Amino acid sequence: MSETILEKMEGRVSYHDSVEEMLRRIQTDGLSSVFSRWPEQEKIRCKFCLEGISCQLCTQGPCRINEKTGATKGVCGIGPDAMAMRNFLMHNIMGAATYGHHAYEAFRTLKATAEGKTSFKIKDIDKLKSMCATLGIDTNQDVNAMAIQLADLFDKEMKITPDEESLMVKAFAPKKRHDVWRNLHIYPCGVEHEVQNAIASCLTNVDGDYVSLATKALRLGLSTIYTAQIGLEMTQDILFGTPMPHEVNVDLGIMDPDYVNIAFNGHQPWIGVATLQKAKKAEYQEMAKKAGAKGLRIVGSIETGQELLQRFEVDDVFVGLMGNWLSIEPFLATGTVDALVMEENCSPPAIDQYAEKYQVALISVSTIIGVPGCETNMPYYPSKADEMADKCIELAIENFKKRHGKITPMVPKHVQKAIAGFSTEAVLGAIGNDLNTLVDVISKGQIKGVVALANCSTLRNGPQDWNTVNLTRELIKRDILVVAGGCGNHGLEVAGLCNLDAAEMAGEGLKGICKALGIPPVLSFGTCTDTGRISMLVTALADHLDVDIPDLPIAVTAPEWMEQKATIDGIFTVAYGCYTHLSPTPFITGAPNLVKLLTEDVEGLTGGKVAIGDDPVEVAKGIEAHINSKRKKLGM
Amino acid sequence: MSETILEKMEGRVSYHDSVEEMLRRIQTDGLSSVFSRWPEQEKIRCKFCLEGISCQLCTQGPCRINEKTGATKGVCGIGPDAMAMRNFLMHNIMGAATYGHHAYEAFRTLKATAEGKTSFKIKDIDKLKSMCATLGIDTNQDVNAMAIQLADLFDKEMKITPDEESLMVKAFAPKKRHDVWRNLHIYPCGVEHEVQNAIASCLTNVDGDYVSLATKALRLGLSTIYTAQIGLEMTQDILFGTPMPHEVNVDLGIMDPDYVNIAFNGHQPWIGVATLQKAKKAEYQEMAKKAGAKGLRIVGSIETGQELLQRFEVDDVFVGLMGNWLSIEPFLATGTVDALVMEENCSPPAIDQYAEKYQVALISVSTIIGVPGCETNMPYYPSKADEMADKCIELAIENFKKRHGKITPMVPKHVQKAIAGFSTEAVLGAIGNDLNTLVDVISKGQIKGVVALANCSTLRNGPQDWNTVNLTRELIKRDILVVAGGCGNHGLEVAGLCNLDAAEMAGEGLKGICKALGIPPVLSFGTCTDTGRISMLVTALADHLDVDIPDLPIAVTAPEWMEQKATIDGIFTVAYGCYTHLSPTPFITGAPNLVKLLTEDVEGLTGGKVAIGDDPVEVAKGIEAHINSKRKKLGM
Repeated sequence: MSETILEKMEGRVSYHDSVEEMLRRIQTDGLSSVFSRWPEQEKIRCKFCLEGISCQLCTQGPCRINEKTGATKGVCGIGPDAMAMRNFLMHNIMGAATYGHHAYEAFRTLKATAEGKTSFKIKDIDKLKSMCATLGIDTNQDVNAMAIQLADLFDKEMKITPDEESLMVKAFAPKKRHDVWRNLHIYPCGVEHEVQNAIASCLTNVDGDYVSLATKALRLGLSTIYTAQIGLEMTQDILFGTPMPHEVNVDLGIMDPDYVNIAFNGHQPWIGVATLQKAKKAEYQEMAKKAGAKGLRIVGSIETGQELLQRFEVDDVFVGLMGNWLSIEPFLATGTVDALVMEENCSPPAIDQYAEKYQVALISVSTIIGVPGCETNMPYYPSKADEMADKCIELAIENFKKRHGKITPMVPKHVQKAIAGFSTEAVLGAIGNDLNTLVDVISKGQIKGVVALANCSTLRNGPQDWNTVNLTRELIKRDILVVAGGCGNHGLEVAGLCNLDAAEMAGEGLKGICKALGIPPVLSFGTCTDTGRISMLVTALADHLDVDIPDLPIAVTAPEWMEQKATIDGIFTVAYGCYTHLSPTPFITGAPNLVKLLTEDVEGLTGGKVAIGDDPVEVAKGIEAHINSKRKKLGM
Repeated sequence: MSETILEKMEGRVSYHDSVEEMLRRIQTDGLSSVFSRWPEQEKIRCKFCLEGISCQLCTQGPCRINEKTGATKGVCGIGPDAMAMRNFLMHNIMGAATYGHHAYEAFRTLKATAEGKTSFKIKDIDKLKSMCATLGIDTNQDVNAMAIQLADLFDKEMKITPDEESLMVKAFAPKKRHDVWRNLHIYPCGVEHEVQNAIASCLTNVDGDYVSLATKALRLGLSTIYTAQIGLEMTQDILFGTPMPHEVNVDLGIMDPDYVNIAFNGHQPWIGVATLQKAKKAEYQEMAKKAGAKGLRIVGSIETGQELLQRFEVDDVFVGLMGNWLSIEPFLATGTVDALVMEENCSPPAIDQYAEKYQVALISVSTIIGVPGCETNMPYYPSKADEMADKCIELAIENFKKRHGKITPMVPKHVQKAIAGFSTEAVLGAIGNDLNTLVDVISKGQIKGVVALANCSTLRNGPQDWNTVNLTRELIKRDILVVAGGCGNHGLEVAGLCNLDAAEMAGEGLKGICKALGIPPVLSFGTCTDTGRISMLVTALADHLDVDIPDLPIAVTAPEWMEQKATIDGIFTVAYGCYTHLSPTPFITGAPNLVKLLTEDVEGLTGGKVAIGDDPVEVAKGIEAHINSKRKKLGM
């Protein structure tokens, strides 16, 4: 570990001063938090679970692989490699199905909107038309009719079986990947089919072969991105607008206790947008004022916040983004939040104590949420978005009356500027819609390469966002442009790496490009769900150069991955053909053949592979070496 | 534990002499087996995993709940009840998705058959018409056109979302259950939708509320049976015939080493039926004879075997059923098996050593199978069933040449008779299609009640099938009719409880009925997949009496459940309204509130509940008391 970087964080648990400040309040107030529960669990970790060689599937278990005691296989006969890979595939499946769920809600919302059943409108008609044109839907028809056809097509894509072919994969996969995937038997069906097939494979006594299980993971990864993620992000663009770069505010200092503050938390922006539309109206501001508040404000929390952030201006109604998932408990402890409205992860299970102590109304607007202490649970129906938004506002105003003047607010002063809202369209726009411009600056080495960073935030490999921030600094110093999504992206935004000043931290080449184009060295590309969006830019570049993905001077990193959507994103990028750095190390180290497959042998198959390591400097060196080797092969 | 029962099994690991005999060969030959790996794992069990309070989902973990060390919650904040229920729900999901996969293959096969693309025919036209009539499909049309519409309808049912209503639930759920389920918010959508919703709920930081998670399990259970299982069993009836009772042979003594023996193992009978059709032709018998064999034989292995057994006569080509999943390794060790053709669980992962030692060709005919050492992997396409069957025969004949005369066969002498093939139609037929006859014998107490037994086989609560057989003996002794499905059913068949002689073990009332109707005291209703089929009979009875399910003198037991399809069957029966005995105790004992919910409180909601206990006599007493209390309430 590089001492110089570590020393700076001595005694800390978060990279962010605002979080450190709030944790002192939380401790004083006697509440537990992720940060305080971590050391309790750290004392009693199970070595077998950490290494992936523990299985709890059936009543013949639980089993562990322990060479020392002679337990070299589970009771059923499964070995360490298949046991670890099956555990890992189950996590991949959870991520895939969750993206599928998000996509289902998106396509359903698009269709209901086109049918005039919601308060939303088709905002980006150009994108709708472009998607329809790409997918063979007649664009010479009414916008709503077109949108209905597209929604139906997207939904059907998730259900593609081996008896059909996916239009999305055909349209959006890099040209040179199709044959590679077919030859490896990983050309994907729809995500719902692949999820079902993969789960049925993971049942006790079905697939006990680690190579077969790993193959299913790769196919599932491709399926997730092409038949769920890209469609859902395009749908959100069609409904709420394609992201374009603009300056926003982030960190906990955006909170003002004198307003009715409603935070939207999760990944799915439906009710957040519906509420924001209302909050901009005088009548709703008036309702808040009647309750004694200065007005009604919308606050972005984690990924739902980023979905709003990348599409809406920050103003006196929408005040910005609070940070990433590890900041949720500190955020609630500010005593300024009137409603936390949740629809997907991360909605942590022990925030009931915060809701009680700091007077927060917990509201669920999705069937998947189940948070103890959450008394309002509204299943999402697109046609009910309007009334659900009304209910959120009503509950928040009621909460304000109980909170304001009774709970002492504590708001850290920190407000950070960031440029949010990059997208493939935005990047192409910045380079005059000519990919040769990008190729040119990469060829010349002003930008040595591009790294996509997409992940969460975790305490396993250091304080919150410590690894993410330090690795990113190391990369941009080496003239490697970083394109970021997910909670890691929010960590970078809060840490000040997504604003124009950050160009000063970059190497000379990258700094020059940033100044010339007016962009930061880290492009905020949105959420973890935008992994597909990032891939669209990379695919455009590969197809433009007529090369395959593994030929490009690019890499992927998830320097603080935490949950199961991150694992399926990571598996996708390996199948897509990318050098993929993962930290923390996945729970597979008890499976030597599997480790070799994922970190070495798979490169001979997909061209991608997993790289591990928790030291930002060493990881950056590894990525740089990889990028340089690809540059060399391309004659750059 | 009742000493009298236990003593009989001193020093044994299986109820069956044939298995005990083969295990001695396996030991002599130096191979490991489920039976030898069990004690190795028994030494190193994890107490936390056994109690359900261990979580490996994210990189903030692995976590354990340990009150003693102060680790009362996981790092994310999840408590013991939600942690255990989430683990349990994930197992339920695996079962549900696997039934969904089986159903997908069934509906796809029906459609392809109706389109003339397979070597199958629509065999039970009456059942096709009756299903169509029930579901609103015009029966005044060509049989194949009808079948296509039904296959499409079945497939669509698995995809029903909250924006639609399931026709299958409407048609097949007990009349008095609809309102109960609606009021509890467990009225189900299609299984594919519920699986997706449930998985997305299990992601880190989404549903951390054990009641919410348990509710999702109940809904998933209902969804599985009504939108996957019933449709798939009806489809198999339509394609291959509705089961009718007939005498069959079971146990390892059915094997003859001088034949080319192909065993079909799993749950999905497509390639088994296709191969059996061919094996009955002289030309294929001739092929086997040319290779030096006496002929070509088809052997039923576990559930696929039962699917064949209940629909086809046992003769010189189809020789019967070898037993249940714990008998697979002993079966292969007979040195008589030329091909083990696998398509679902249980296809144990360490049979490669048996394939090598005893010269068996391992063949997969499904995308979900991944067995080390299996060199032939054919993904299933209905239109390829014919050529896949040819390949199986070819490989088996090739194997015979390598096996016969080189591997010393060892075949236990045991062959047992059983009556297989009960179905709702068969039972109704036996009582003159008048449910009053059944009501009458129950009213009079000749049959005190009915217990559905559906499950696996496990070593956790005693030797193979020990608990299943002893509990069943205790039940029939008490004049309780047992209706059996799954590997437990095969255990009972092999143990001699499914033949007419077994009536002698029954109480006087039940014995009299058995003799009068010519039925055994244990009705072999098929596989674990026939849980839905069994429920159809119970539903018919409840609707006939105009009472709700919890009012009936019935119960469910899974006395040796092992894997994840068993857990979803069990959860279904709780939602359906049944007293449901589960042994071994599920991994939830570290979660006191959850235990209370499932064993007590849920009864006030669905009328069903979970009962636990590993002593057959005590369990039988509990079931009898439950049945008597229901009889009393009905005034019987």
